Amino acid sequence: MLIVLKPGVTQDEIDHIVEKIKSLKLNPHVSTGVQRTIITVIGDEDIIREQPLEALAGVESVKSILRPFKLVSKETHPDRTVIKVGDVEIGGPRVVVMAGPCAVEGEAAVVEHARMIKKAGAKMFRAGAFKPRTSPYSFQGYGREGVMFMVAARQETGLPFVTEVMDPRDVEFLAEHADMMQIGTRNMQNYNLLKEVGRMRTPVLLKRGMNATINEFLMSAEYILAQGNRNVILCPRGIRTFEDITRNTLDAGAVPVVKELSHLPVICDPSHAMGIRDYVIPAGLAYIAAGADGLIVEAHPNPEDATSDGQQTVNYEQLTDLIARVNKVAKAIGRDCY
Amino acid sequence: MLIVLKPGVTQDEIDHIVEKIKSLKLNPHVSTGVQRTIITVIGDEDIIREQPLEALAGVESVKSILRPFKLVSKETHPDRTVIKVGDVEIGGPRVVVMAGPCAVEGEAAVVEHARMIKKAGAKMFRAGAFKPRTSPYSFQGYGREGVMFMVAARQETGLPFVTEVMDPRDVEFLAEHADMMQIGTRNMQNYNLLKEVGRMRTPVLLKRGMNATINEFLMSAEYILAQGNRNVILCPRGIRTFEDITRNTLDAGAVPVVKELSHLPVICDPSHAMGIRDYVIPAGLAYIAAGADGLIVEAHPNPEDATSDGQQTVNYEQLTDLIARVNKVAKAIGRDCY
Amino acid sequence: MLIVLKPGVTQDEIDHIVEKIKSLKLNPHVSTGVQRTIITVIGDEDIIREQPLEALAGVESVKSILRPFKLVSKETHPDRTVIKVGDVEIGGPRVVVMAGPCAVEGEAAVVEHARMIKKAGAKMFRAGAFKPRTSPYSFQGYGREGVMFMVAARQETGLPFVTEVMDPRDVEFLAEHADMMQIGTRNMQNYNLLKEVGRMRTPVLLKRGMNATINEFLMSAEYILAQGNRNVILCPRGIRTFEDITRNTLDAGAVPVVKELSHLPVICDPSHAMGIRDYVIPAGLAYIAAGADGLIVEAHPNPEDATSDGQQTVNYEQLTDLIARVNKVAKAIGRDCY
Amino acid sequence: MLIVLKPGVTQDEIDHIVEKIKSLKLNPHVSTGVQRTIITVIGDEDIIREQPLEALAGVESVKSILRPFKLVSKETHPDRTVIKVGDVEIGGPRVVVMAGPCAVEGEAAVVEHARMIKKAGAKMFRAGAFKPRTSPYSFQGYGREGVMFMVAARQETGLPFVTEVMDPRDVEFLAEHADMMQIGTRNMQNYNLLKEVGRMRTPVLLKRGMNATINEFLMSAEYILAQGNRNVILCPRGIRTFEDITRNTLDAGAVPVVKELSHLPVICDPSHAMGIRDYVIPAGLAYIAAGADGLIVEAHPNPEDATSDGQQTVNYEQLTDLIARVNKVAKAIGRDCY
Repeated sequence: MLIVLKPGVTQDEIDHIVEKIKSLKLNPHVSTGVQRTIITVIGDEDIIREQPLEALAGVESVKSILRPFKLVSKETHPDRTVIKVGDVEIGGPRVVVMAGPCAVEGEAAVVEHARMIKKAGAKMFRAGAFKPRTSPYSFQGYGREGVMFMVAARQETGLPFVTEVMDPRDVEFLAEHADMMQIGTRNMQNYNLLKEVGRMRTPVLLKRGMNATINEFLMSAEYILAQGNRNVILCPRGIRTFEDITRNTLDAGAVPVVKELSHLPVICDPSHAMGIRDYVIPAGLAYIAAGADGLIVEAHPNPEDATSDGQQTVNYEQLTDLIARVNKVAKAIGRDCY
Repeated sequence: MLIVLKPGVTQDEIDHIVEKIKSLKLNPHVSTGVQRTIITVIGDEDIIREQPLEALAGVESVKSILRPFKLVSKETHPDRTVIKVGDVEIGGPRVVVMAGPCAVEGEAAVVEHARMIKKAGAKMFRAGAFKPRTSPYSFQGYGREGVMFMVAARQETGLPFVTEVMDPRDVEFLAEHADMMQIGTRNMQNYNLLKEVGRMRTPVLLKRGMNATINEFLMSAEYILAQGNRNVILCPRGIRTFEDITRNTLDAGAVPVVKELSHLPVICDPSHAMGIRDYVIPAGLAYIAAGADGLIVEAHPNPEDATSDGQQTVNYEQLTDLIARVNKVAKAIGRDCY
Repeated sequence: MLIVLKPGVTQDEIDHIVEKIKSLKLNPHVSTGVQRTIITVIGDEDIIREQPLEALAGVESVKSILRPFKLVSKETHPDRTVIKVGDVEIGGPRVVVMAGPCAVEGEAAVVEHARMIKKAGAKMFRAGAFKPRTSPYSFQGYGREGVMFMVAARQETGLPFVTEVMDPRDVEFLAEHADMMQIGTRNMQNYNLLKEVGRMRTPVLLKRGMNATINEFLMSAEYILAQGNRNVILCPRGIRTFEDITRNTLDAGAVPVVKELSHLPVICDPSHAMGIRDYVIPAGLAYIAAGADGLIVEAHPNPEDATSDGQQTVNYEQLTDLIARVNKVAKAIGRDCY
Repeated sequence: MLIVLKPGVTQDEIDHIVEKIKSLKLNPHVSTGVQRTIITVIGDEDIIREQPLEALAGVESVKSILRPFKLVSKETHPDRTVIKVGDVEIGGPRVVVMAGPCAVEGEAAVVEHARMIKKAGAKMFRAGAFKPRTSPYSFQGYGREGVMFMVAARQETGLPFVTEVMDPRDVEFLAEHADMMQIGTRNMQNYNLLKEVGRMRTPVLLKRGMNATINEFLMSAEYILAQGNRNVILCPRGIRTFEDITRNTLDAGAVPVVKELSHLPVICDPSHAMGIRDYVIPAGLAYIAAGADGLIVEAHPNPEDATSDGQQTVNYEQLTDLIARVNKVAKAIGRDCY
C-alpha cells in the first residue's frame, strides 16, 4: 500500500497516520521527497484495505500494490483449472462450443433444438428458463418447468446443459438438475446469489457484468470460490461503451488478461457481445484467437421465430460453419477441438 | 416502429415482412425511396417490440418510436408524484436531505449518528445493515439485527430511515421495519428483487445502475410499479465512465431528463457520485440546481473511523454546511426546504 | 514513482532496475514484503516518467505519485488566475455568460445576434467562423470573412467575442482580430495547434475533449502555458458515455476537481453537454452551482433557422431567463454577477 | 428520415413542419397513430440532415435512416479496395504486418530497426518522426530530419514506410517522402489535416479516434476521399472505456462492422489497443481472426531502451513469433500471407 500525502501535510498529521498504521500491526515507511512525502506499507494489504485511510487529514491518495483476489489468482494456484461437465472438459487443450436458443420454447422445441445443436457439432446445450427481461411486460420464461424440459433434452441427446439462475431461492433446484448454472451479466454483483451458488458444487458460468472491470469480474468469481465452489468458468460477453452500432463492444482483449491473472477457464459469448447475427462468427473467432477455451452461442433453427434475441441468433447452417471455423483457428493457435 | 430494409431487399422479402406484421394485427405502411425502402408500423409498439424483426431476411434495422415504459411515464401520469415517508414529503416543493453513515456500526453508534444528523438538519436517516461489498472478505454488515438498531434510533429521534435490501428473502422483513427500502446500484436489474419490493407498499429508493441508461433505469422502476407499488423514488448516484480521478462521474444531467420523462421524485447521491469527501458539497449543489428533489449523503461524526466509505463521508460540520447551502440554492431556483 | 515488481522477480532483475534508476541520478528505495517487492523513487518524477520502466524484466507496474502538470497546477500557483477580456473579468468573483449562435450567418445577422445577446444580458459574444463539421458535405463556415463580421459586431455592441481556431495557419489572424480563441473539443490534443496559440497572448478557451480525462485536459492547457500564453480558460462541455438520450453527458462533477487542481478559470458549455435545448438551463445552473466561473451558451433569435446546432440552441426568451436564474444561483453560493 | 412528433402536437405545428419539408423539395408522409404522429421523409437525406428539425415546435426526435457516408460505403463501391504501397498490396488476399519502433531514434538506429523488422518478416516499416506527446515536456520527435532517416532506411532495406503527420504544413513534405502517411488517433477529427492529406495521392493510414464511433471513423475517411484521395486504410487501435488494466480496450469487434460498411482495407494496431507487451500477440491474432487485412505493431530490438512506448513494444523474438502465428491464423480463416 502506498499513501501519498498532500503538499502541505503537517508533522502532526504524519504522526497520526503512522500511529494509525502501527495500531493495525503493520510497518509504515516514510519517505520525504522535494515535492511529496509518501508512506509505504508492506504487509497484509487486506487489513489496511478495509481502513478509510483516504479519510485521514493530510492524505492525498492511497494506491494498492496487490490485486484484491486470492483464490482465483494464478499466484496462489499456478496450474490452469480444468472443469468437467458431463464428458466435456472445459479449460483443457480442447476448445468447446455450447449452443442453444436464448429461451426455452416448450418441451418439444427444446428437444428438437438440442438435437440440432448436437448435430451441428456443439458439445453442450444452453437455453434460458428464467429470463431477465428489461421489460416487466416481456415473457419472463418457463421457470422450473423449463429446466425440466432441458433435463428431458439431455436424456434424449446426452448433451449436458447450462441455464441461468436469477434468484437465490432457485439455486438448490438448479444445482440439482442443471449441469452448469449461469450467473447473468446483470447479476454479476448480486452477492447473495453468488454466495448461494458458492455453497453448491455444480459448475458456475459467471458472465462478466456489462460494465464490470476485470478486477471486479474476478472479485465476483472470488465470492463463489470463497464459499467452497471452485468450479467457476469466466464468461466475457461484451461490455458497454459509447459505440452504438453493435449491442455491446466485443471484449476479446479481456481474454489474455483474465488468463494471465487467473487459473479459471474462459468461455466467451460472441452473440451478446455483438448483438447482430452476421457478426457472431468473426467475433467468436476473435475470442478463440485471443485464447478463449470455448464459446457459448445463441442458435435457433429459425431465428425469426425465436422467442427472444432473434436478431443475434445464428441458424443451423451458421452454427455448423462457426464450429468448423472455430476448430480451424483453434488448431492454428495450437489448441485442439472436440 | 420503423423498419429500414437493406439496399438489395427483394419483393418476396418485403412481402414476407408485411405479412408477418399483418399477422400481428398491425398495419404496415411501405415507402420506397431512391436509396431505401422503409416500413412504418403505427400502433401498439409493445406487440411488435417482442418480435425479432431484425432476424427477418432483408431487414437492416428496426427503430422504436415510443419509449418502452408506461406507468413511470409522465405521458400516462402528468402530475408529479409526492411520496410521504413519515412526516417527510418527497417530490413536493420542499427539498429533502437524508444522511447517515455508510454502514450500521452497532446500536449505540446508530442512535448517536441519527441524533447527529438530525441536529445537522437532515430529515431522514440512512445506514446499511446489508452491505454489498466488492470483496467477500470485507465485513458484510449487521443484517437484520442492524435494521433493528435503526428502529431503535427512529424511536429516539423520530427520523424515518432508509436501508438497503439485497435479497428477495429479506424484503418482507424490511418492508415491515424500514420506512423506505433501497435497491442498490448493483441490483438495479435484479428483477426478482424488483418484483418482490413491487409487491410491498413501503417506498423504494431505486439507485441508478452505474452503467444503466436512463431508459433502463426507468424500466427498472416500471418493474416495481407494474407489481403495484407506486412509491418509487429515483436515485441518480453517478455513472461509470473513463474518468479516473473521481470514483464515478456525477450524473447531474440525468436529473432534468428523468424529471421530464417521469412523474416520480428524484433524490440524488453526491457521495457515491464523486467518491471524495471534498467534492460532495459542490456535487450536491449541482444536483439540486439541476432539479433534484433532495439528496442522500454519507455522513459520520468521525469519517476516519467509519467502517466503510470513509473517504467519501462528510463529517458533522460539513453536513451542516451542506444543508445550509442546499437550502440557499433551493430557494434560488424557486424551491422550498425543510 | 512506485515500481511494483512481479512475484517471481530475481535478484539480478532487481539489481538491473536499481542500476537503471541510479543512472538517472535518482535514489531508489527497495522494500521487500511477503507477497511483493516494491521500489520507491522519490525525486523529480519527470525524469523517470520518460523511461519505459514497464519494459524492464521483473516489473509488474509503475505508479506515478505526482500529477504531470506544473504551470496549470495550484501547487505552483496558489492564487486563482483572473483573465481580462475587454472589460470582462473571467475567474473573478463575478459569473460571466457568453452567448451567440453556433455559426456565423452573414454580416447583418451577426450584428443582429450580438445585439440580441447583449440585450439579454450576456457579456461576451460567441459564433463560429471556422466550423468543424462531422460531414465533409456540411457547410464549413465563413472562415476569415466571418471573423471580420464579428469584428463589425463588436464595434456595434462593444461586446468582446470568442471564436474557434482549427488550423495553425489561422492562429496569427485570429490572435489579432478575436478577443479570445477557442480550441474545440476535437482539437484538444492537436498539439501543433496548442503550441501555436501558446505563442500568442490572446486568451484561449480550451474545450475539454469529449473523451479526455481531467489529467489530459490539464496537460493540454499545460502545452499552451508552456509556450508562454498564460491566458487559458478551461471549458468543460460534456463527455461521451454510454448514455444515449442526451448528446453528451454533463460533466458538472469535473468543475470542483479542475478548480482544486488548477488556478485557471472555468467556463462551461451546457449547450453541447446536453445537446437538447430544453435541458440547457438546468445544466447551466448545475455547472454554476458546482463552481463554474461562467457559461458559454448557443443562442439564436430563431433556433429553427440556425445554420447548425438548432436543436440545442436557446432562443432570446430562454437566454434572458437563463441569465436571470444563473445570477440567482450565483448569489446563493456566494458569487456575484455582471 | 423519420420525425417523431410530441404527444400533444397541434395541427398548426404539423402543418408548419410539413411546409418546411416541402420547401426543401422533399415529400413528407404523415402517419397518425394512437399514441404518436410521425412524419416519414423519403429522399435525399443529406438535404434534410442539415436542417435543425429538432428545433421545430412539436418535434420530439428525428431519426436518420441512411448512413451519412457515401464514398467510403460499400453501397456505392461494392468491390473491396486494394491499395498498393511499394510492392505491398493492402486489402488483398494476403495479410500484411508493418512494424517498427514508436519513435525514430537517430539515423543509424532507424536503419538497424528496419533491417531487424525485415528479417523478422514484416513487409513495411513504421516509426514516428513527429510525435504527439501528452506532455509538452516530453521529446517531440526528430521531425522532418527523422523522415529522411526513414528514407535512408528504405534505400537500405527496400521496405516502404509509414509515418505520422500532425500538421497541415507538413503534409506536402510527407506526401513526397513517405510511402504512407498516418493520421493519429488524436487527429482523427482534425478536419483541416484530413482535407490536406485528401489533396495528395499518397496512401493514408487513418487511426480510429480513441472515442470515435464507427460512424464518425468512416466520416473522417469520407473527408479524405471527398478531396480526391481514395487511398485510405482504416486502422482500429483500441478505444477508451472504463477498463483500467489495459491502456485501451481492444476493438476487434469493429473489424467485421467496418468491413461490412466500407470497401476500404483495414490494418489494426494491437500495440496501442492493449498497451502491454505481453498481450500484443493474442490481440493481434484476434484482429486477424476478426477479418483484419493486417497489423501495425510497435517493435524494438531492446524495448527497455526505446524512446517511448517501451512497455507496449515487442522485441525481435516476439515480432518473429507474432508474424509466424499471424500467418497460421490467416491461413486458418482462408487468407494468405506474405
